[in-house]
Amino acid sequence: MDLLDIRGNKLKSRLLIGTGKFPSKHIIPQVIENCETQVVTMAVRRVDIGSKEENLLDYIPKDTILLPNTSGARNAEEAVRIARLARAMGCGNWVKIEVISDNKYLLPDNQETIKATEILAKEGFIVLPYMNPDLMTARRLVDAGAAAVMPLGAPIGTNKGIRTKELVQILIDEIDLPIIVDAGIGKPSQAAEAMEMGAAAVLVNTAIATSKDPVQMGKAFSLAVKAGRTAYLSKMAPIKEHAHASSPLTGFLHKGEL
Amino acid sequence: MDLLDIRGNKLKSRLLIGTGKFPSKHIIPQVIENCETQVVTMAVRRVDIGSKEENLLDYIPKDTILLPNTSGARNAEEAVRIARLARAMGCGNWVKIEVISDNKYLLPDNQETIKATEILAKEGFIVLPYMNPDLMTARRLVDAGAAAVMPLGAPIGTNKGIRTKELVQILIDEIDLPIIVDAGIGKPSQAAEAMEMGAAAVLVNTAIATSKDPVQMGKAFSLAVKAGRTAYLSKMAPIKEHAHASSPLTGFLHKGEL
Amino acid sequence: MDLLDIRGNKLKSRLLIGTGKFPSKHIIPQVIENCETQVVTMAVRRVDIGSKEENLLDYIPKDTILLPNTSGARNAEEAVRIARLARAMGCGNWVKIEVISDNKYLLPDNQETIKATEILAKEGFIVLPYMNPDLMTARRLVDAGAAAVMPLGAPIGTNKGIRTKELVQILIDEIDLPIIVDAGIGKPSQAAEAMEMGAAAVLVNTAIATSKDPVQMGKAFSLAVKAGRTAYLSKMAPIKEHAHASSPLTGFLHKGEL
Amino acid sequence: MDLLDIRGNKLKSRLLIGTGKFPSKHIIPQVIENCETQVVTMAVRRVDIGSKEENLLDYIPKDTILLPNTSGARNAEEAVRIARLARAMGCGNWVKIEVISDNKYLLPDNQETIKATEILAKEGFIVLPYMNPDLMTARRLVDAGAAAVMPLGAPIGTNKGIRTKELVQILIDEIDLPIIVDAGIGKPSQAAEAMEMGAAAVLVNTAIATSKDPVQMGKAFSLAVKAGRTAYLSKMAPIKEHAHASSPLTGFLHKGEL
Repeated sequence: MDLLDIRGNKLKSRLLIGTGKFPSKHIIPQVIENCETQVVTMAVRRVDIGSKEENLLDYIPKDTILLPNTSGARNAEEAVRIARLARAMGCGNWVKIEVISDNKYLLPDNQETIKATEILAKEGFIVLPYMNPDLMTARRLVDAGAAAVMPLGAPIGTNKGIRTKELVQILIDEIDLPIIVDAGIGKPSQAAEAMEMGAAAVLVNTAIATSKDPVQMGKAFSLAVKAGRTAYLSKMAPIKEHAHASSPLTGFLHKGEL
Repeated sequence: MDLLDIRGNKLKSRLLIGTGKFPSKHIIPQVIENCETQVVTMAVRRVDIGSKEENLLDYIPKDTILLPNTSGARNAEEAVRIARLARAMGCGNWVKIEVISDNKYLLPDNQETIKATEILAKEGFIVLPYMNPDLMTARRLVDAGAAAVMPLGAPIGTNKGIRTKELVQILIDEIDLPIIVDAGIGKPSQAAEAMEMGAAAVLVNTAIATSKDPVQMGKAFSLAVKAGRTAYLSKMAPIKEHAHASSPLTGFLHKGEL
Repeated sequence: MDLLDIRGNKLKSRLLIGTGKFPSKHIIPQVIENCETQVVTMAVRRVDIGSKEENLLDYIPKDTILLPNTSGARNAEEAVRIARLARAMGCGNWVKIEVISDNKYLLPDNQETIKATEILAKEGFIVLPYMNPDLMTARRLVDAGAAAVMPLGAPIGTNKGIRTKELVQILIDEIDLPIIVDAGIGKPSQAAEAMEMGAAAVLVNTAIATSKDPVQMGKAFSLAVKAGRTAYLSKMAPIKEHAHASSPLTGFLHKGEL
Repeated sequence: MDLLDIRGNKLKSRLLIGTGKFPSKHIIPQVIENCETQVVTMAVRRVDIGSKEENLLDYIPKDTILLPNTSGARNAEEAVRIARLARAMGCGNWVKIEVISDNKYLLPDNQETIKATEILAKEGFIVLPYMNPDLMTARRLVDAGAAAVMPLGAPIGTNKGIRTKELVQILIDEIDLPIIVDAGIGKPSQAAEAMEMGAAAVLVNTAIATSKDPVQMGKAFSLAVKAGRTAYLSKMAPIKEHAHASSPLTGFLHKGEL
């Protein structure tokens, strides 16, 4: 069976989702069920265990892997502190590193991300770093102990699709870790395309959460990820420059048969 | 339930497939089952009912709608003769008009296609014309009695994808008949994209038949078409120029909370 | 010398421009001078020889070829009448056929365009038909006596670029008449691209007339057309899948030379 | 007058060229003259002043700015040594930093590039670092004293065009230094596009050197760069979703005027 393996965790689903931007937390369990995701990311900031208010975690099924992210961290040190806090709060030992000091494009800081990855991997975390696609950075993340590499397709929340295709394809071809395309994927067709390229998985949030029907859109992404993965495994037919008839063109009409 | 309606025929599947180019006819039933298609096209030329050899039709399940195509016709007259022959042979009254006199790109002849459509529609055929995407031609096909319009995405067999997106989108927006994107679709992601654009269905042959595993690739296309359709119905989130945080960025770290 | 030959008229410039949409007629002579165009199109409607008001023709230098267009014609008959009127008014015997009955996308009617071309070519006009890119239509235009073929890149006035690249390239490769890309070109880079593809010329209006500085933008398009044409004639270097060093990478540093 | 200002050096030309891959060194002076470049890069390795063979420098006109590059350097230290060597050899104090340890895609190492930039800028070099497009790296290069930033469009020598458009545009919008698009530009239209995006200049080598006629292709690029720059300064007309008539469509034909 074709499974996504992240540090020995064998996953059937190759769609990871985020929890931000949903019109209501109450819709999240249905989205998760419908899209069959097994890994859900959330900002540690939004997890408030001692609160009297409902906690985001109450909406995540128990068998789902939590992937706390370090959203809000502006450097490696802050990311490390947030990760440790998440673990202390009982969120487990997975962490998605987000180090962002740019408020306009929300682009990650590759250098600080490498640092945070190294520290947290040594502390036993399963580290999934979000990064600007860059081969040398990805190699350093491998060395630093990352469990997967998460290059962006386009700035967070833009729904622009995989605008960094050239660079992401190189990571897929060269890096011996799962490549999970994160940020920018705005339509199921784009998720399918990432999978056809050979990505191991995709992470989607805005495109699901801000669609008109998030529960159904979750389903659409789930189908698209399976479609793309199945196509990748079945090896696609080559692109040809000129036309090739699907049906025989040569001429029974020309042979007096009619 | 969301069904594709072609002249009162209500179809669950929005994936039509072709039968040419498969490595062996014996694989066709499995492909059909796996991709759940309900409409299968074949060149009339390849249907040979009186033959001692196995007939292509033997490989099409009984509950599948046959869509004989007029492949080989170079003008309206020949297309009409082939369509009538198909009906006489017991292939039913659906017909896909292909009028092609160009051997290099296999591009359809819109003008002759309109003529053939008009004649055959009057004779009670359910006519699905293959055409070069063109708004005025599509309007004339509507007037001629077409049951759907099948614009090409790229020349047949090229797997180049929907290179005529601009023109196909206009047909989807303006024509009050199902638009079925035919020819050129090479990957499931492209089929999903056609559906996201609002196409009613897609027809795929080469991309399935010449992949390494046609049975699985049929499944991949089936999933992709469902993904794209579901996304279309769920209304996609808008594309934004600048980044928008999925998770709150503002600063609990900055408030001395840690 | 590399000249554009339209029915024996040898032209140095491969940029044709339109006269609509300029903020003021008074700017037109400067634009023409700056962009070095030799062929200028205008709607016959706007030419009003008997008028006391200033006539558009007053702004076109004497040595410029006038290309009256049949804008406003909804069928072949109307186009023919407008063309004859233009000739009677002294606009010469060039004519750009525009037959448009669609008010939203302003897409041409290929079938009526063929009819008008045939009639006018027989009457001695130099006929340049505007058309939706379509190989069979282009072949019929050749037979009808067209002097060039003008496929659209995108709907008029959209500045979207050459969205019909696949179909236009086929015309360039297959049709033995000058192919002039008309409508949709929004930036000089897109004009250059059309020329690199092998187009004989481009026609630009909106992108020049509605830029902030039409005189300078005319210059920009003129340079771009020359750039693209020169590149086409110099044969471009091939696209490679993998990187190739521009400079020697092998190592003097590794040989103890430093 | 519109000039490119690199550390007070005011340049008329916004086309920088490389010297590798030409079929013969003898063609280089003609290319330089024809494309009007004022800055020429070469691998320090290829400069051999003491040689009895003809030196590459013999083919560079005296008034051209030399931009030695550190091609062959695998880390900051090697880049620094090569830069110093170039200066000692009389190549002046400009340097293009290339730090590449990947032999397949020849992608730069942003982290080592920042280090080399910092050291060399302090030593008085005018430093132009070649980099993988990345906002945070660009900001660090500014801090390190770079004179310009040179993001890649695609891997060196591929002629694929600006595949990193999304990321390069962000650098153009956010970084207060000239952005010079380097590597990947394969056609003049792509150079024009970079300039329309707001790039300050482009560097081209393979596309000129390996075309069939490098002297003419140099001219083509020169024209394209001017076209793109002129368009950028003239502000391009906006892209519209729907068509807008260039000529008045309303109907004199409908008013009984004919």
